[in-house]
Amino acid sequence: MFETAAIVGPGLIGGSMGLALRQRGLAERVVGIGRRQVSLDKALEAGAVDEATLEPAEGVAGAELVVLATPIGAFGALIEQLAPALRAGALLTDVASTKTEVVETITAGLRGRPDVFYVPTHPMAGSEQSGPEAARADLFEGAVCVITPLADTFPEHKARITELWRALGADVLSMTPQAHDRAVARTSHLPHLAAAALLEMLEEPDGPLCATGLIDTTRVASGKPEIWIDICATNREPVREALRSYGRLIERMAEALDEGNLGALEQILTEARDSRERLVRKRRERRTGR
Amino acid sequence: MFETAAIVGPGLIGGSMGLALRQRGLAERVVGIGRRQVSLDKALEAGAVDEATLEPAEGVAGAELVVLATPIGAFGALIEQLAPALRAGALLTDVASTKTEVVETITAGLRGRPDVFYVPTHPMAGSEQSGPEAARADLFEGAVCVITPLADTFPEHKARITELWRALGADVLSMTPQAHDRAVARTSHLPHLAAAALLEMLEEPDGPLCATGLIDTTRVASGKPEIWIDICATNREPVREALRSYGRLIERMAEALDEGNLGALEQILTEARDSRERLVRKRRERRTGR
Repeated sequence: MFETAAIVGPGLIGGSMGLALRQRGLAERVVGIGRRQVSLDKALEAGAVDEATLEPAEGVAGAELVVLATPIGAFGALIEQLAPALRAGALLTDVASTKTEVVETITAGLRGRPDVFYVPTHPMAGSEQSGPEAARADLFEGAVCVITPLADTFPEHKARITELWRALGADVLSMTPQAHDRAVARTSHLPHLAAAALLEMLEEPDGPLCATGLIDTTRVASGKPEIWIDICATNREPVREALRSYGRLIERMAEALDEGNLGALEQILTEARDSRERLVRKRRERRTGR
Repeated sequence: MFETAAIVGPGLIGGSMGLALRQRGLAERVVGIGRRQVSLDKALEAGAVDEATLEPAEGVAGAELVVLATPIGAFGALIEQLAPALRAGALLTDVASTKTEVVETITAGLRGRPDVFYVPTHPMAGSEQSGPEAARADLFEGAVCVITPLADTFPEHKARITELWRALGADVLSMTPQAHDRAVARTSHLPHLAAAALLEMLEEPDGPLCATGLIDTTRVASGKPEIWIDICATNREPVREALRSYGRLIERMAEALDEGNLGALEQILTEARDSRERLVRKRRERRTGR
């Protein structure tokens, strides 16, 4: 599918892409680009990349496919550095969890390179673990990958990126960066902040009374704070809006208790249970119906 | 340990107690009491009880240990019915998730029976499943069981109930009903409502963008709404207070985003991650250090 693929930041997501590209014969050669030799050594050891370099410009030279998989905060400086080094006709993609600001940053950095084709993506997979040692070739199997093509994206490049993600096992969904960002604020960023806030509510003697329910509810809060700060920083408006309507809903629940209106509370709990059951069923269908 | 134990409501919790009492030789005979024959048949089939009856008074007659494991809402009518039928010297316990109101209801119902000894408990175990078919003899292994003895509980009865729960595999913790209710409002009831509210936030097209993070964060919301309504109804003040301070924390997060104060947000996320890691470590120690 590709002769050479370069992965900038072969951590959990980038490393899993590298593993899958290599194991499935989707790339003849995978080059890993990182900032620390120790991380690159782990990526090599995990089989996520064939070669590794600390020099971004050197690493991407000649690559047909370049994947940006670093934390979002690094994108600005990185694209400045990479843009002149990219091969003519290269397909560039990123796997960031937020899209609107990221797309602005990267298209601005590519202004002098109309011969490089950028198609933004967001694979909805991961775990609270990180690093190339957590990478798995099947990480994207049954996952959804959102692509947010630009107004001027050529259909052939959109098709190529779609084909790539399908080959990695994902279902591909196309939407605008704005619609993506509003949806993930509700489905991912708010749940993360809400879980962290639950942990903040605990008082000193509560420890032994924390059972499996709380442990599961807050699993996502074990993720790296700096990654989530990048996400909040680059998706401020939608996250803020989601937090405020969530706060209003929590207040509505408190009011229902004030008024002894348990019917209102029961309705919310019943809708929530039904909604979760639909989600779980659809996920199962997606995973088994392949 | 007991000759005859009666379990009123042999569902997930009651059924797991029955299984463990029988398998571990802690009771010679376990009688299940239920409202529907079909549930009792399942309890018999699961091996949770030796005998089963639809008549509470008949079922508890002669039992040394009587466990109330029905939904909380049934306690009032049940204790009226049971009180005259209990054997002199019987040890009565309940496994309800809230304690202050439950203790009031049950002690009121026992007013004419100073020869029956009530020790309230709350085993912090369970799952979003229910019914005797989900019962497991090891459900309480490594779990915490809170007991909330009354001012007039005799030390020997407290010791007997403590011994029972230890034999079922639990770590026993003693506190007042009020302290228990405030703590579980934070560690269990609020997380449940918060998870339900996250599901309520979703909009129609969000389904495919719901990944593992959201599914795990909302697992508890698959629980039975009627059980949670009973819990909220019998723990109104603490739950309302927890909802309101949670709402204020969510608002503080939105304000931090308003002000671009990502440092404040990062501090919350870092504290939350550290707090969760401490909880997970302590749970692991509790489970392996036995």
